[in-house]
Amino acid sequence: MDHLTRQLDFIAEAGRLRGVLRHTVLTDLPPLGESTAAGGSGGAAGGSARRENSAEHSWHLAVMALALADHAPAGTNIATVVAMLTLHDLVEVDAGDLSAHAPAAEQERQHLAEQAAADRLYGLLPAGQGAELRRLWDEFEERVTPEARFARALDRLQPILQDVRAGGRAWRAQGVTADQVAEKVQLIEDGSPSLGEFARRLVEQAVADGILAAG
Amino acid sequence: MDHLTRQLDFIAEAGRLRGVLRHTVLTDLPPLGESTAAGGSGGAAGGSARRENSAEHSWHLAVMALALADHAPAGTNIATVVAMLTLHDLVEVDAGDLSAHAPAAEQERQHLAEQAAADRLYGLLPAGQGAELRRLWDEFEERVTPEARFARALDRLQPILQDVRAGGRAWRAQGVTADQVAEKVQLIEDGSPSLGEFARRLVEQAVADGILAAG
Repeated sequence: MDHLTRQLDFIAEAGRLRGVLRHTVLTDLPPLGESTAAGGSGGAAGGSARRENSAEHSWHLAVMALALADHAPAGTNIATVVAMLTLHDLVEVDAGDLSAHAPAAEQERQHLAEQAAADRLYGLLPAGQGAELRRLWDEFEERVTPEARFARALDRLQPILQDVRAGGRAWRAQGVTADQVAEKVQLIEDGSPSLGEFARRLVEQAVADGILAAG
Repeated sequence: MDHLTRQLDFIAEAGRLRGVLRHTVLTDLPPLGESTAAGGSGGAAGGSARRENSAEHSWHLAVMALALADHAPAGTNIATVVAMLTLHDLVEVDAGDLSAHAPAAEQERQHLAEQAAADRLYGLLPAGQGAELRRLWDEFEERVTPEARFARALDRLQPILQDVRAGGRAWRAQGVTADQVAEKVQLIEDGSPSLGEFARRLVEQAVADGILAAG
């Protein structure tokens, strides 16, 4: 198949990520006509709410990498972080989104489904290029380099910021408690000590405000 | 105000781009419960359709930059292109999206609104950082560097690809003809000769297929 045709196939398949819905609830956006997601009484200030999709989530993380660059350890290549975050959820086109709070057995099944998805999706590209972009995703998953650890920290911080803004709606819908969120904070600290400390205070405040269950 | 607080304000304001709807129609995504946008009879194969928002559009362009990197002139810094595309529509948070086919007077009003939006939004960040990211947006707008010209080429190519996939639905809804699309193709050629040639053939095919009005 033609070189450009393969690249365009990859781009079209990637575009389906705009249809993968996350558990995070966005509030205060203009109405899309979508019914209010993740019910629960109370919640954030009125206005429409809808679930976030994985494409716009990935974009918001890239913005965060640019805006929070000085919270990465010295020497971290932010351009690599931005590229990594752009691609980090692509496998969800096939594997779907799993809540970060899902049980371990589900996480393991998800891991296998994502590996198969990466084989298929990056395999659409011309060989050398597919391998190069796949390596960036593998690097993100392995979480060894400073770039991958900072990217992962942002990926954990973003839903906490959104959940606080949404008045804890997604947390209540999933029955998530402060202990579970604290586990995610460890991943944030691992990639960025200053953002980790901030996230820890944010979670304490959410419990104090009654929008996140203690325990 | 605290350094991190300013950065988080910028990130939260940027997040509103997820609520800015473009004229491009996405097809074949899982239903979001949104009513079918940009009516018109015929159109793409059944299934749900909704308008694209500017955040997921920006993300898709960043994916395109990574997947089509070898269509940029030699020496183009693709990491800069990805960062530029991540930020290129941020001003729409205040200024909204204007169709690329709007009349010149509207384009001029939009230009002024976007400058004011950039002042406000990049002004939320700590000063040095705000100026740095603003420069990246100015560079995109000025379209002088190879990075900006390649970024702009992708920004013009993506809606054409989407409009073809949607069976010309957005073109019909806006009364767009082949001549108007051909003007956009010139901007694609300017940033990438090989993508420009491809886009020209795509537009000819769309006319031949009866999904884009000649003239």
